[in-house]
Amino acid sequence: MDNRPIGVFDSGLGGLTAVKQLTDVMPAEDIIYFGDTGRVPYGNKSRETIIRYTRDDIGFLLRHNIKLIIAACGTASSVALPHLEDFGVRVIGVLEPACQAALRRSKTGRIGVIGTVGTIKSGKYEQIIRSLDPSAKVFSAACPMFVPLVENGYAESEVARMIAADYLSPLKEEGVDALILGCTHYPLLEGVISDIMGKETELISSGREAACRARELLAEADMLTRAEGPGKCEFFVSDSAEGFAELGGLFLGRTISSDVHRIEI
Amino acid sequence: MDNRPIGVFDSGLGGLTAVKQLTDVMPAEDIIYFGDTGRVPYGNKSRETIIRYTRDDIGFLLRHNIKLIIAACGTASSVALPHLEDFGVRVIGVLEPACQAALRRSKTGRIGVIGTVGTIKSGKYEQIIRSLDPSAKVFSAACPMFVPLVENGYAESEVARMIAADYLSPLKEEGVDALILGCTHYPLLEGVISDIMGKETELISSGREAACRARELLAEADMLTRAEGPGKCEFFVSDSAEGFAELGGLFLGRTISSDVHRIEI
Repeated sequence: MDNRPIGVFDSGLGGLTAVKQLTDVMPAEDIIYFGDTGRVPYGNKSRETIIRYTRDDIGFLLRHNIKLIIAACGTASSVALPHLEDFGVRVIGVLEPACQAALRRSKTGRIGVIGTVGTIKSGKYEQIIRSLDPSAKVFSAACPMFVPLVENGYAESEVARMIAADYLSPLKEEGVDALILGCTHYPLLEGVISDIMGKETELISSGREAACRARELLAEADMLTRAEGPGKCEFFVSDSAEGFAELGGLFLGRTISSDVHRIEI
Repeated sequence: MDNRPIGVFDSGLGGLTAVKQLTDVMPAEDIIYFGDTGRVPYGNKSRETIIRYTRDDIGFLLRHNIKLIIAACGTASSVALPHLEDFGVRVIGVLEPACQAALRRSKTGRIGVIGTVGTIKSGKYEQIIRSLDPSAKVFSAACPMFVPLVENGYAESEVARMIAADYLSPLKEEGVDALILGCTHYPLLEGVISDIMGKETELISSGREAACRARELLAEADMLTRAEGPGKCEFFVSDSAEGFAELGGLFLGRTISSDVHRIEI
């Protein structure tokens, strides 16, 4: 039994989709969230910069006596985590759980991965999938317009549909039957993505899978909370707290009523 | 006579459009450019964060013995400059020169301004135009999708045309006959913007006007270089130097052959 909170970080607001999944699968757990909104986005930055920022994010969470860290950010998970030292607290990224889920749900072994430029360039998803199943075929596409489309209210527009068709048609043509949404913003484009890929393609939300994996890990180690719940969420950001509460509700699926704190990173 | 370089900064790559204009109007001057690519973009961040970053950028340039600073970034110019202390070196933003040019070229006094969310929220363009000419009418629109469209290769696409129509139609309907492109990225969308606004609307490039203003100021103070030229450009960035040289050519209009240095900010 361990009543300490779970730490979650992301480059910005997107990681709140993972918080939403966490409170779904473990409603009694307390959560400390850090969104690096002062330096968002990570996806188009260089490897060294992403590694440095991710180390800062983890360092911040470690000061809050947490029992487990989830790197909700696809870019941080793929580009930075493989290169970071041991922090004495388990850090799980969004990659492995999503790769396992994709292999479980694909019938043909033809798996698609979409993410930021940094995520796709890292080749990490492909590497993990092929280490789990060398016969799997992986097809990847960077979708750099997806985050701005979501953040600027174009998620359900004709424009989103056209851009998604540009990005996804090559994957569709390769006949992938499971598609990993390798960025926390992408579940908000699920409708558009599903229309293009077709009903027969399973969409894998990396945030959802990471939340399920976190529950498994905590259960195995007897580290689930015994508190009655519902757990508390505390939010920290590196840019204005106001902006966060405003837009964050979109990702969290509910109003952010708890305190949001601004910190220097 | 003053042979010291001119300092130029921007949140990222966009300010290179201003460097291009500077080398056009003052080919013999040396230029030191700083692009804060590790924290780009500024346009969607809060006022306090934009002020802090802008102070860092100016602080960096001041260590290079420069004679004048140009804030090529529309967001830094409008949100941060009005709140900053005196640095002992003249700092010019992109706002005043663009406002003066718009008033000069408009026949109807109906002036449009487009920029990032931060720029438009600040209301600074409107304030300056109306202080120069209280009878002018100003119509503004934030265009947050324009930067990602340019940076991801969609500048001349049907998608850009549709988004631009969303943003610009209200300005077109108001009958503006001069439109300030209040962000360094926007000149790369000139074709699309002009198609929507029509030939009778003058497009004012804020980078171009700032470069002309810089020449005037230096000439008045007898601070133009006596060197034969062409001047040298030195580039500094806060993210990977590689990425900068690659994409930067698009904004500069020529290959970046000089050294690009990465610094910590």
